[in-house]
Amino acid sequence: MLGSTHGTLTTHSRPARVVACGEQPPHTVHSMTDPRGDAGRLGDGSGDGAVDRDVSGRPLSAPVPDLDRFFRPESVAVIGASDSEGRPNTGITRQLIAWAERVGARLHPVNPGRAQVFGRACHATVGELPEAVDLAVLLVGEPLPVIEQLAEAKVKFAVAFASGFAETGADGAAAQARLAEAVERSGLRLLGPNTNLNAFEKFRDDLDGPAIALITQSGHQGRPVFTLQELGIRLSHWAPTGNEADLETADFLSYFATRPEVGAIAAYVEGLKDGRSFLLAADRAARNKVPVVVVKVGRTETGARTAASHTGKLTGADEVVDAAMRQFGVIRVDGLDELQDTAALLARARKPTAEGIAVCSISGGTGAHFSDLATAAGLRLPTLSDAKQAELHQWIPDYLNVANPIDNGGHPVGDWRGRKILDAILADPSVGVLICPITGPFPPMSDRLAQDLVDAAEQTDKPVCVVWGSPVGTEDAYRRTLLGSSRVATFRTFANCITAVRAYLDHHRFAAGYRSPFDEAPRVLSPSFRKAQALMRPGEQLSEHAAKQLLRAYGIRVPREQLVTSAAAAVRAASLVGYPVVMKGSGPQLAHKTELGLVKVGLTSASQVRDAYRELTEIARYEGVPLDGVLVCQMVERGVEMVVGVTHDTLFGPTVSVGLGGVLVEVLRDIAVGVPPFGEDRARAMLGELRGHALLEGVRGAPPADVDALVEVVLRVERMALELGGELAELDINPLVVLPRGQGAVALDALAVCH
Amino acid sequence: MLGSTHGTLTTHSRPARVVACGEQPPHTVHSMTDPRGDAGRLGDGSGDGAVDRDVSGRPLSAPVPDLDRFFRPESVAVIGASDSEGRPNTGITRQLIAWAERVGARLHPVNPGRAQVFGRACHATVGELPEAVDLAVLLVGEPLPVIEQLAEAKVKFAVAFASGFAETGADGAAAQARLAEAVERSGLRLLGPNTNLNAFEKFRDDLDGPAIALITQSGHQGRPVFTLQELGIRLSHWAPTGNEADLETADFLSYFATRPEVGAIAAYVEGLKDGRSFLLAADRAARNKVPVVVVKVGRTETGARTAASHTGKLTGADEVVDAAMRQFGVIRVDGLDELQDTAALLARARKPTAEGIAVCSISGGTGAHFSDLATAAGLRLPTLSDAKQAELHQWIPDYLNVANPIDNGGHPVGDWRGRKILDAILADPSVGVLICPITGPFPPMSDRLAQDLVDAAEQTDKPVCVVWGSPVGTEDAYRRTLLGSSRVATFRTFANCITAVRAYLDHHRFAAGYRSPFDEAPRVLSPSFRKAQALMRPGEQLSEHAAKQLLRAYGIRVPREQLVTSAAAAVRAASLVGYPVVMKGSGPQLAHKTELGLVKVGLTSASQVRDAYRELTEIARYEGVPLDGVLVCQMVERGVEMVVGVTHDTLFGPTVSVGLGGVLVEVLRDIAVGVPPFGEDRARAMLGELRGHALLEGVRGAPPADVDALVEVVLRVERMALELGGELAELDINPLVVLPRGQGAVALDALAVCH
Repeated sequence: MLGSTHGTLTTHSRPARVVACGEQPPHTVHSMTDPRGDAGRLGDGSGDGAVDRDVSGRPLSAPVPDLDRFFRPESVAVIGASDSEGRPNTGITRQLIAWAERVGARLHPVNPGRAQVFGRACHATVGELPEAVDLAVLLVGEPLPVIEQLAEAKVKFAVAFASGFAETGADGAAAQARLAEAVERSGLRLLGPNTNLNAFEKFRDDLDGPAIALITQSGHQGRPVFTLQELGIRLSHWAPTGNEADLETADFLSYFATRPEVGAIAAYVEGLKDGRSFLLAADRAARNKVPVVVVKVGRTETGARTAASHTGKLTGADEVVDAAMRQFGVIRVDGLDELQDTAALLARARKPTAEGIAVCSISGGTGAHFSDLATAAGLRLPTLSDAKQAELHQWIPDYLNVANPIDNGGHPVGDWRGRKILDAILADPSVGVLICPITGPFPPMSDRLAQDLVDAAEQTDKPVCVVWGSPVGTEDAYRRTLLGSSRVATFRTFANCITAVRAYLDHHRFAAGYRSPFDEAPRVLSPSFRKAQALMRPGEQLSEHAAKQLLRAYGIRVPREQLVTSAAAAVRAASLVGYPVVMKGSGPQLAHKTELGLVKVGLTSASQVRDAYRELTEIARYEGVPLDGVLVCQMVERGVEMVVGVTHDTLFGPTVSVGLGGVLVEVLRDIAVGVPPFGEDRARAMLGELRGHALLEGVRGAPPADVDALVEVVLRVERMALELGGELAELDINPLVVLPRGQGAVALDALAVCH
Repeated sequence: MLGSTHGTLTTHSRPARVVACGEQPPHTVHSMTDPRGDAGRLGDGSGDGAVDRDVSGRPLSAPVPDLDRFFRPESVAVIGASDSEGRPNTGITRQLIAWAERVGARLHPVNPGRAQVFGRACHATVGELPEAVDLAVLLVGEPLPVIEQLAEAKVKFAVAFASGFAETGADGAAAQARLAEAVERSGLRLLGPNTNLNAFEKFRDDLDGPAIALITQSGHQGRPVFTLQELGIRLSHWAPTGNEADLETADFLSYFATRPEVGAIAAYVEGLKDGRSFLLAADRAARNKVPVVVVKVGRTETGARTAASHTGKLTGADEVVDAAMRQFGVIRVDGLDELQDTAALLARARKPTAEGIAVCSISGGTGAHFSDLATAAGLRLPTLSDAKQAELHQWIPDYLNVANPIDNGGHPVGDWRGRKILDAILADPSVGVLICPITGPFPPMSDRLAQDLVDAAEQTDKPVCVVWGSPVGTEDAYRRTLLGSSRVATFRTFANCITAVRAYLDHHRFAAGYRSPFDEAPRVLSPSFRKAQALMRPGEQLSEHAAKQLLRAYGIRVPREQLVTSAAAAVRAASLVGYPVVMKGSGPQLAHKTELGLVKVGLTSASQVRDAYRELTEIARYEGVPLDGVLVCQMVERGVEMVVGVTHDTLFGPTVSVGLGGVLVEVLRDIAVGVPPFGEDRARAMLGELRGHALLEGVRGAPPADVDALVEVVLRVERMALELGGELAELDINPLVVLPRGQGAVALDALAVCH
């Protein structure tokens, strides 16, 4: 059904507007700290003609930056190197020398005031070095003057430590913009300013298996994830992105998503530089099935404000960030502990063979408690088959419940039976994940159980998870046995285990069904666009009648209606649209018509229409509201009232929201957001995210609503958002009445504001 | 206003029914595993005449059991003691001997098959012992035959290890009932069956400060809390309640609430034996301002079922358990880690002097992240005064934000300035709690900071909280410095710190304003009761008309209405109640009137009334619905539609629920529960718990609703629930229309089912 009604939206290309003239499309959205925008970025390497863009003028793909030589440079220059005791640069120089020796890179100190630094020949400028270096580390307070020298010397990458840029306010932001321009002209890629040496820390190279790659906008906040190496979890990279004058979170995200050693990407994000580049990077990770786990500050105003003052970046409306991440399968968590635990499981666990979890504990209480929380979080414990239960009862006393959760009673895991039990559970096809919560260590049982878990995990592709619940955490079974295995995922709390296992199952389900919305995003303008453009009135709020014409231009159904300016015309209009009718005052600046008394419903005769016309014009005169006439509208049958709208997000541009009308949206703000481009799947998923979505299925004997028609309206509104972009500052269809299945949806009222 | 309208509900006592005849009130609720009920319990010690009961027949107070000699017995008998290698009883006997030596108790082995056990004289029966012991530990498989001997020997307490009782099903439950009866006759108090030695473990006696007392229904699940002692947190008691044939969770709760060394009570609960005894114990703790933190399994069906099969107890409807705990200030958490962290803070922190928190971090990112999560959880970060900020800037560079969160930039806490900063923050009167999140340890700064925090905490009454975010947890600054202090509260995750601090502030706010609902619970029947009882029809659903008479008996307003059985009578009735009228089919088994077409609204003339009468009776005939007549009702103006009802909970008996009508209750189940007895405060709090409560304040220009009238209806329904109890199986007022402020509330429809 949806396919057939899409036909009108697929012709008329607009290449001239987007690419040829280089005109800035009015609806391209830039964050405050990005002086170049998308057009500039993609022009860099590929020539404007080759950039694939959607109908909004924004790119549909982004090249993966080649950062191999950034993370593994063969030669490094340290600009501002020092060996004078007490200077901060001395410590950093020492650290860099140690790191270069460890990874086998050639290091060249650069400092006009010194002949040698730590016994190495020191040059006055980078131009005088014996070779063109891969990476320059800038320890100077003013990086800007150095950039041109680096470009001349063909340096590929630079890291700028200096602070005092966008994080300090307007003056700093201007200085950062100048730096960014210089970097763009130069052709080198810059990390920073306001960053540090985290990328060049000492990584353990004795750990195997897929690794976590880490991106953070704060060194301190990245430290716990980096420290996971001390627990035996492999880290491959750390990108401390700082102020992102050039290289941004999205660049590292897409680079890491292409690296074979990376099993999962963990990120701590305070703000994003650009919405579209983040979406394209997340799309890259989704296509490559690389899980991305993110802590994103900005749940509250306080957090958003504090984060902005810390990094000088925008945090975006949180519900929009949330929706954007969900659309691309990015897993958002709140705590750094969840970030660690979830990324570690996702990096190392193989693809699930089933979605059921089995919980096996040495105490019935522990099994009950864990199952309770797991089920509440949406995990599923399949009841084991009678045959499997009989098998388990070979080793577990009959009076214990082994249906799942499996209460092994403790004793059997203290001897040879423990391993049999674990293997039998893991062999069950309904079980995708085995979880053993050990809340209290009891060495005669838990030590052997820990070793059995490690051994069993070696023989299976299914994730084996343990919760080590002792608050002490110095026990050998935990530190040596469990953490010593790269096949067992060890947690410290039920909650984090459940969060991680849920993310693991969600990720693989998402990845298996992923279709990139960028592949299907519209590239050419629809015929609707010209009709719509003729209706736009820059800077104004359209009248209800004009807003409905806009909807009609995009094929969204509105009631039959006529705008009239006399009582006699109203009566003629009423017989044309058909009784009963609704009459409303209509004017360009009119909102809250109902509260003002400017709506009359259920008019069934010419005399009622005449009276209503008189009354409406009198009220408008009394209230001082200018009318351009009175709308005489067809009265629409009852259905489920929804709201569908477009708003502008500072990061992601025009976004589409849908919610249940009336109380649910007004009191509970029960809305779901879609970030264009998205397709039918996302539109349907949005409806499923509504807390009140059962209303669409029909409650108290009401028939199920025409959800297909609703989805179609959401997609048409998305098309409006993409095509009209910034010209349409705000659109609010309220209510959209969704009729019973097969009968469509009608926009009863609409408000549209032009930019 | 509420007081004045309560007048009709305060006379007519009913002592005969409740006490004198010993008749079991039909609405007294027993859990499956308690064969005696309240009446039996309280009769034990005090004689029925002296027991203070509310109008529902349930006790208004419960004596605190004296368990001093249970936890600190001077003499102990071990029935079934053994020293034969390989027998389970041998290990337990050895453990008990060691424990008795440690605490200075005299231990007597009892076993008819032995003359000596571990070199101690062994007696054949407890009656042959040289003294009457305080405590008998029963290691025998069948405790029942021993109980009488113990009673004869004047043993005060017994602990029964044996399993195979209520946790195994119906046969076990019957055996447990027999055991309970024997115990009740005997006069001794029994812990178990199906329990263990946790109460007699080795407690550290070198720790000071207020302690945590622990109650658990699973030994394994209690272990992590007990292990807190290894982190320097004092534990005073551990009650592993087992199957609770006699001593139950509530007994330990009220005992611990009276012990001076107990700073907080932590409990792991799978099911409760009796709702009222739990409420009375929680009330005791609330009166004594002792915080109670509970993990209660049963969020989901799965959890409830698994827990029931583990302990043989009922878990109760989770929303009712939740409401009961909230009413008495019991803090419910989900994880054992939260239980530990929250109980530890609440036990040791002194009363707050302010509700604001200050967050001080060595990184702006950490401060932003923590503040974001804290604010989202409802904590408040007051902006520090200009003077305080200037003071902090003496030690912290000017470009860093110190408004709160305070970004100290790291370096100042590496030297003498750190302590100055901490003291200055702690001295601020707007700050009640200081929180330092240290996500990544950096020894030059974090080691000194840890020590400064410990020192600063010694000098203040305000809680000082640290989050040690390193996943390693073996660092000296954490293990030695921070955990070495009983004044610093150390957490491992942001989430747990926030949960604990919120619970701390909530507890003290609650305790300061606590008034026991048991003091104000009605003790005498209202005149409404007799009127209501005349309307009850055992086993039947009342007609709408009868249900409304029931409401009217309790002073709840219903529309003017008449029940008629002819069209002519309908017309007469309409002119009496006044046009416009509503007409509805009325019958004893009628639900879903609207769906059946048995409701006609807005009838304005005699002819419409006549037509409606004909139509309604025809529909009823066609649908095969027997009518006892047609209701002609006054039409009520529009207001906020609510639902108010009574349902029966297996644990807590009749409970009152209130919700917003229509979509909110049907689709979102947005209801709040009150567990009688409760007063006006709780009734108001229930409205505040509704997600859609803003509707009562008036949205979109609607006037604020008459919340006082709504509260009054909730209290009158509570009175019905208490007085009618089990006679009224179910009551559902839907809708109750709450008119604009000052105009009252009217029950438009009601459904009542008698038991």
